[in-house]
Amino acid sequence: MNETMLSVRLHGPRDLRVERVPKPPPPGPGEVLIRVSATGICGSDLHSYEDARIGDTEVKSPLVLGHEFSGVVEEVGPDAFDGSNQPIRPGTRVAVDPAQPCYRCELCQRGHPNLCTQLKFCGNHPDDGCLVEWIKMPGRSCHPVPDALGDEEAALLEPLGVALHAVDLARLRVGHSVAIIGAGPIGLLILQVARLAGANPIYVIDPLEWRLKMAEGWGALAFSPKNEEPVGRVLRETKGRGVDVAIEAAWGDKSVAQAAEMARFGGRLVLVGIPRDDRLELKHSTARRKGLTILLCRRMKHAYQRAIGLACNGQVHLKPLVTHRFRLEETPSAFELNARYADNVVKITILNRS
Amino acid sequence: MNETMLSVRLHGPRDLRVERVPKPPPPGPGEVLIRVSATGICGSDLHSYEDARIGDTEVKSPLVLGHEFSGVVEEVGPDAFDGSNQPIRPGTRVAVDPAQPCYRCELCQRGHPNLCTQLKFCGNHPDDGCLVEWIKMPGRSCHPVPDALGDEEAALLEPLGVALHAVDLARLRVGHSVAIIGAGPIGLLILQVARLAGANPIYVIDPLEWRLKMAEGWGALAFSPKNEEPVGRVLRETKGRGVDVAIEAAWGDKSVAQAAEMARFGGRLVLVGIPRDDRLELKHSTARRKGLTILLCRRMKHAYQRAIGLACNGQVHLKPLVTHRFRLEETPSAFELNARYADNVVKITILNRS
Amino acid sequence: MNETMLSVRLHGPRDLRVERVPKPPPPGPGEVLIRVSATGICGSDLHSYEDARIGDTEVKSPLVLGHEFSGVVEEVGPDAFDGSNQPIRPGTRVAVDPAQPCYRCELCQRGHPNLCTQLKFCGNHPDDGCLVEWIKMPGRSCHPVPDALGDEEAALLEPLGVALHAVDLARLRVGHSVAIIGAGPIGLLILQVARLAGANPIYVIDPLEWRLKMAEGWGALAFSPKNEEPVGRVLRETKGRGVDVAIEAAWGDKSVAQAAEMARFGGRLVLVGIPRDDRLELKHSTARRKGLTILLCRRMKHAYQRAIGLACNGQVHLKPLVTHRFRLEETPSAFELNARYADNVVKITILNRS
Amino acid sequence: MNETMLSVRLHGPRDLRVERVPKPPPPGPGEVLIRVSATGICGSDLHSYEDARIGDTEVKSPLVLGHEFSGVVEEVGPDAFDGSNQPIRPGTRVAVDPAQPCYRCELCQRGHPNLCTQLKFCGNHPDDGCLVEWIKMPGRSCHPVPDALGDEEAALLEPLGVALHAVDLARLRVGHSVAIIGAGPIGLLILQVARLAGANPIYVIDPLEWRLKMAEGWGALAFSPKNEEPVGRVLRETKGRGVDVAIEAAWGDKSVAQAAEMARFGGRLVLVGIPRDDRLELKHSTARRKGLTILLCRRMKHAYQRAIGLACNGQVHLKPLVTHRFRLEETPSAFELNARYADNVVKITILNRS
Repeated sequence: MNETMLSVRLHGPRDLRVERVPKPPPPGPGEVLIRVSATGICGSDLHSYEDARIGDTEVKSPLVLGHEFSGVVEEVGPDAFDGSNQPIRPGTRVAVDPAQPCYRCELCQRGHPNLCTQLKFCGNHPDDGCLVEWIKMPGRSCHPVPDALGDEEAALLEPLGVALHAVDLARLRVGHSVAIIGAGPIGLLILQVARLAGANPIYVIDPLEWRLKMAEGWGALAFSPKNEEPVGRVLRETKGRGVDVAIEAAWGDKSVAQAAEMARFGGRLVLVGIPRDDRLELKHSTARRKGLTILLCRRMKHAYQRAIGLACNGQVHLKPLVTHRFRLEETPSAFELNARYADNVVKITILNRS
Repeated sequence: MNETMLSVRLHGPRDLRVERVPKPPPPGPGEVLIRVSATGICGSDLHSYEDARIGDTEVKSPLVLGHEFSGVVEEVGPDAFDGSNQPIRPGTRVAVDPAQPCYRCELCQRGHPNLCTQLKFCGNHPDDGCLVEWIKMPGRSCHPVPDALGDEEAALLEPLGVALHAVDLARLRVGHSVAIIGAGPIGLLILQVARLAGANPIYVIDPLEWRLKMAEGWGALAFSPKNEEPVGRVLRETKGRGVDVAIEAAWGDKSVAQAAEMARFGGRLVLVGIPRDDRLELKHSTARRKGLTILLCRRMKHAYQRAIGLACNGQVHLKPLVTHRFRLEETPSAFELNARYADNVVKITILNRS
Repeated sequence: MNETMLSVRLHGPRDLRVERVPKPPPPGPGEVLIRVSATGICGSDLHSYEDARIGDTEVKSPLVLGHEFSGVVEEVGPDAFDGSNQPIRPGTRVAVDPAQPCYRCELCQRGHPNLCTQLKFCGNHPDDGCLVEWIKMPGRSCHPVPDALGDEEAALLEPLGVALHAVDLARLRVGHSVAIIGAGPIGLLILQVARLAGANPIYVIDPLEWRLKMAEGWGALAFSPKNEEPVGRVLRETKGRGVDVAIEAAWGDKSVAQAAEMARFGGRLVLVGIPRDDRLELKHSTARRKGLTILLCRRMKHAYQRAIGLACNGQVHLKPLVTHRFRLEETPSAFELNARYADNVVKITILNRS
Repeated sequence: MNETMLSVRLHGPRDLRVERVPKPPPPGPGEVLIRVSATGICGSDLHSYEDARIGDTEVKSPLVLGHEFSGVVEEVGPDAFDGSNQPIRPGTRVAVDPAQPCYRCELCQRGHPNLCTQLKFCGNHPDDGCLVEWIKMPGRSCHPVPDALGDEEAALLEPLGVALHAVDLARLRVGHSVAIIGAGPIGLLILQVARLAGANPIYVIDPLEWRLKMAEGWGALAFSPKNEEPVGRVLRETKGRGVDVAIEAAWGDKSVAQAAEMARFGGRLVLVGIPRDDRLELKHSTARRKGLTILLCRRMKHAYQRAIGLACNGQVHLKPLVTHRFRLEETPSAFELNARYADNVVKITILNRS
């Protein structure tokens, strides 16, 4: 009742505090109480931390951040079923989908829960995130993971789901050429999934040499925009044709326009990153002449089961993305490191148990 | 051999001259010689006339403008077949597709001749347009029209084809709601086609009252942005949901962003207009949250036969679009009128025979 | 508690009895109690009545038949919301979707509740149908209808929804040609919807002259297979090309194969009818050479709101389909009439209140 | 002029003769003369050989069989360009697309040359096939292959193209489950391409143990219908769900119905094989309840460049399919072997040069 737990709350730009808050009450109908195991820090968490804003939305505080997570079910409310509609038992290790759609609106009914306008999302005000010890969630947000999958990997199924959704939007076919701008965690996961889908070649553009090395390890033709103007290079390598699919995952202000220049006539442009200045801008004549189709990647849908399969089969590698690990109590340092030395980071995870 | 003919050539911004030039030589293999009957003036002709530029492309001069046209086949070269692959006979009245794709490149082979990178287009430098007495064209660019269809209507099958392509991209279904920004000739044709496709309601936004009246006559809920903020009104009338499809046909700089705000979550945004400043810009967070699909309408494909059918069956009305008529010799006055008093014009046609 | 009500139950082939059964208990959470107003008799009800089987499934008895219905909400359970996720009030007139998907399985989550494998359906054993005085349903199965829509029309939104789904599967575009085999209630509704979607021409094939007259009234080119071999005629009228979409709604054993012969190369074949002998059979070489896409129409999805809109706007006409009306007590006679004199019937409705 | 060459002509069922016929005349405009290097024997060649009929079509004789082939361009006619629209030089090694669409009809224009109704096809009466020394072909049917690709492999790009088309129709996504009935050359190529597309698991069903071994080598879960009822096993292994995509490549009479039973609700059924009795038959209630989409695979489209890329990159393995090799003069023995001992054969190639 009066139990408390650790929580990491944002109080303003760059003001993240480890505080004791009440432990959640017991789970109600359809709900479960989860002991959090691991959390990944996402680019959008960083936006919140640095600017106290994402896109056009101010982040109201205090707010617990974090939405990429795994945990162990501790208590199960009445009539709680998991994301595959199976009964849940206490002790089950689960990857947790932070999105809680209403399951009733038009978009949910049509199979687009990622676009639910009633959606609650961990770490989106007023819904607290997962950088806590315990969190209460709907059972159906929980996806049991086999023992083969570690806690960190289970937490990173969330960004893998986003990568799957981005590739779904791209409608990749075997032999399609792809360019990915940005080799952060999402870009590197998109690379892995695109390669699984038979894309070839895959160009990856990022200014950091060590990230390019990682991309090359997963089969990309990777290069830095510092060494070469990226549009020119992609067009030259494709003999002027451009790539079938260009994917923006760089969160940059000019990368959308660049991706458009890289796409072939009739190609697809998939936008995944969130630019700081909240503008989607490109050359109209480029888009029009090429007859481009531009797709906005919003969260993910129907991806968790596939993500679990890919991670367990070893078809996608999640662990190599983790460059730094911190304990829950050290979360403020983790964010500050990520903000200051972003160039050294792919993915930071927060591990709740020592 | 030494025969000459009238032609209307652009020599620079707002410098259009009626000049005598040599009549085209006899048609070669696959070609026909057409005596032009009627030409419609298009918004892109106006761009060329006023700015000597379209999008990012300078218009090199002297250049004959004009690409929406009909005529009568006068001479037939060897092995000339029409657009339905039938033999052509002299005397056939034809609507002429100004786009001459290569029929061989990857895009043509895949069924996207509108995106052919080798495409020649009447009135696009270095290819002269149809504001002449005679023009030589590939037979397969010619689509025979029945007598029921007048010369002007046959000329306007070209913009009708663009409207069909825009609606194809919209993937309209019976009962879909639509917003069309811009009630110029293309907007009004899109309205007619969208209505035929079962869309309902269809909002049309335009600042000119008399155009709104036309739109209402074709079943639109039409209103002026001068009287009401259009995004707010569309959202209010759709109870906050937005429209299934938002179509930009206004050539305006802000209308793309407005259309995005009008679209529902998961909706489609079809861009048809060509903005003067060559920027495609909208709010990234709007597009991302809604998970929009943005489609660029580039010319048309596989539309002429359908357009002929719709016009002949009386399902689409072309004549009411024509607000002004001029003779070939008067073309410079026609362009000047269109440029100065655009607010009084929907479509100007140039008639070659008195 | 001990209240009883009238119900019409099937006890075996052609053995339908009007019996008193207990009135349903009060609605539980999310449920409503509906006083049934009107029911339409469907072809599948007839199958059950005549053969005590549909497709490969035996109909276990006793079973209340009926699934096309409207009614008035009399009691509302806690937390009951309608199909648009709005609170329901007693006294609301509603059209009722007889399909009760689980809303949780993979198919439901992906937006295909019509394919839910846990789906309950009114009048499908063990779930009783609507040929009763009161029925308990989930609130979300209920779609409020405006006063403009009569009870019979509201009941017939169900087959209209099926017609909408069939046309959705057909991916009709303005100017597409269509052939519909069978001018029963579903065929005639598909005709109306296809016409709204801009299809032209639409061929309708049925052996009954008076039905052909109805089809002609809605714009079809209608003819009897008794007078003319239908494949030959459709191919002749389309100059050998065939139709873009061929729709089987005749429940006949040979009509699938005929529809395939009518479709154009690359065309779509939509199968709606349920043949008695449970075989889908056609010429393999026809389907292969044409590269056909064959789509099976299973119930409907996301159709009720659109159906209400079309019926209220007068875009689709439901009343003319009703050829006979009976009172609930007379239901056995209604079925016997439908079975014996099917050639005189389009749609029979059962009206609960005199 | 009076030169002759070897040719292998069918004169009736099982009557294949090696005969001297006139060498083709010099290539005309757009054409090239090819010295054939290698030919693969296809299942449809076998149908012709054994029955002198395919599907519903009688094979008129005498006819040169063969359509999977590679060769060297010896002479180039005026204005001859290859399939990528590049000039061709004598001496170029090419894979040859046996399909010669008209490039002008509606289907060709829309990007479906595989469905061209004017299409000529090597070895389809009246067009002779490639089991000759020299053959004249349109330049655009020729696809230059790099030296890395052997003659046999170049010949087998044709069935690889068919496999690519089948997988295109399947719209495979990463993590989709697939069942392939039949592990002949097409089935094994579909397996390889489906795996490249990220499908997992892939079930392959074939009665021959040694073929199952090959399938396992390419990652399939392969089993024989002699040991286990295949529908039951696939459903059991997928926990009753069925596979996302079921592909029939067995040319069997019952395998279409089996594939339908293996597909999940809402799944896709791709039909590639050509059954001897020319019937497409399955249980209607299965297809209807599942709401299946059935796709007929007709030849291929836009596949050669992709096929070349996959074979050169080592992503697809063609050589292991070749179980037997013969010289052109030995072709009748090759066919007889294939007909009599089909169970020992995957693919027989005919090599023109010793």
